[in-house]
Amino acid sequence: MLLEGKRVAQALDEATARQCGELHEKGIKPCLAILRIGERADDLSYERGALKRCQKVGIEPRVYALPQDTGEKQLLELVESLNRDETIHGVLMLRPFPAHIRDEAVRAALDPAKDVDGITDGSLAGVFAGTGRGFAPCTAEACIRILEHYHIDPAGRRAVVVGRSLVVGRPAAMLLLHKNVTVTLCHAKTQNLPQVCHQAEILVVAVGKMGAVGAECAAPGQIVLDVGIHMGEDGKLRGDTDFAAMEPVVEAITPVPGGVGAVTTSVLAEHVARAAARQCQ
Amino acid sequence: MLLEGKRVAQALDEATARQCGELHEKGIKPCLAILRIGERADDLSYERGALKRCQKVGIEPRVYALPQDTGEKQLLELVESLNRDETIHGVLMLRPFPAHIRDEAVRAALDPAKDVDGITDGSLAGVFAGTGRGFAPCTAEACIRILEHYHIDPAGRRAVVVGRSLVVGRPAAMLLLHKNVTVTLCHAKTQNLPQVCHQAEILVVAVGKMGAVGAECAAPGQIVLDVGIHMGEDGKLRGDTDFAAMEPVVEAITPVPGGVGAVTTSVLAEHVARAAARQCQ
Repeated sequence: MLLEGKRVAQALDEATARQCGELHEKGIKPCLAILRIGERADDLSYERGALKRCQKVGIEPRVYALPQDTGEKQLLELVESLNRDETIHGVLMLRPFPAHIRDEAVRAALDPAKDVDGITDGSLAGVFAGTGRGFAPCTAEACIRILEHYHIDPAGRRAVVVGRSLVVGRPAAMLLLHKNVTVTLCHAKTQNLPQVCHQAEILVVAVGKMGAVGAECAAPGQIVLDVGIHMGEDGKLRGDTDFAAMEPVVEAITPVPGGVGAVTTSVLAEHVARAAARQCQ
Repeated sequence: MLLEGKRVAQALDEATARQCGELHEKGIKPCLAILRIGERADDLSYERGALKRCQKVGIEPRVYALPQDTGEKQLLELVESLNRDETIHGVLMLRPFPAHIRDEAVRAALDPAKDVDGITDGSLAGVFAGTGRGFAPCTAEACIRILEHYHIDPAGRRAVVVGRSLVVGRPAAMLLLHKNVTVTLCHAKTQNLPQVCHQAEILVVAVGKMGAVGAECAAPGQIVLDVGIHMGEDGKLRGDTDFAAMEPVVEAITPVPGGVGAVTTSVLAEHVARAAARQCQ
């Protein structure tokens, strides 16, 4: 079975649009600031997706596009002004920043209440502790939303998360744990990865390498969530799994494109609506 | 083989005493504030251990013992005065607090720089992100220190952590992950726990229930770290594992008493010395 991200996104967007409509009636216009430095193709592509999503659900996007040579001090001043601006409810920073800007300093400057992509210590601690404070990184949460949409209750099941990044692997593992999953985190130093993956009823693949996980890791009955997005030599988008090899073996799998990536900006938009509702209480 | 916490503590204390000696020569007296509400037996016992350890390594302990009916506001004011007091480098709060005090409010009030037991968002985010900022919860870190002392390199090995508390299970899993371990988190909703545990080369048991994990979870070659401390009906201390049943099967195991618990206050003391060194740079 295909787990179609577009269907999940559609359902999420409808709910977010309803929430935004309610906020509009109260005179509140949910607003997302998008902060970009330079003109990286990845950033521009993600920005286009976020703009489209915002417009679809009734969120006002404001793009702050800064030149590549923007200094850290200047960036911090902008972040602080966004923190103070009561008409802005969420801030998305397209990262990684250029090397001359300290990521940690900028993350620390952002108001956790506006941290709709889960990059501040407050959000990370909330994800780790399972308190629901702050916001989870959108891509990690997108994995959970796909399971929910397809009525896959993961409680008591075994999940294996391949990849331990702070934007996907680790937060996805924690979100699954909070859903009572028995979760295993794998990474580049894991030995006998296929053997570990065979134990997974839910397999989240977020290694950041095209086609890195193939049939050797697949098992009948598995639900596979492929987080990767890469441009193949033939100009087609591909994921972290070898889709053609895995799909015939497993129970269900997300395609690329149209899988996890298709849900990410919908989660982002929902976070902005929720942040607006919280801030205007 | 027995993994003797006392030996680990002894080695840690020697290093901490050396660091404190160097600080004393610079005119800095590392100081730990211990904040206790009421007279719970568990708190008093931990406090006695911490006081003894502090005295041994050259840390000045200051006990703030508050009555059971202390209000939240009063407690928050004390925490803020401890934050401001430059002669205090670390603060240990004995928890859980009485029900009328919101744990989250008090944790948020503590200066992360003085958070030597890893309870603030800053420390939790540091443990989750592996940045080394803040301090890990002492008991979780004690598990790692035991492995280090016995020259057990966990990199690339499989660990199973049974128990997902925020003071032990989850942070221990993250600390192991940062050491390149393939780590699985289990809990009360885990199915077929013995089967999962059999895959563990390192088994951390932190379920908070006396003798809950027995021979059915043991496998030859395993390293077992037992985090529990309970008083048996016969007045003897026991752990979360059935030691008598596991010890003959596994490669190495921590006893109770004299295992993980014996190392916890040594880790705490080391954190205080490190906090003092950082704050006085």
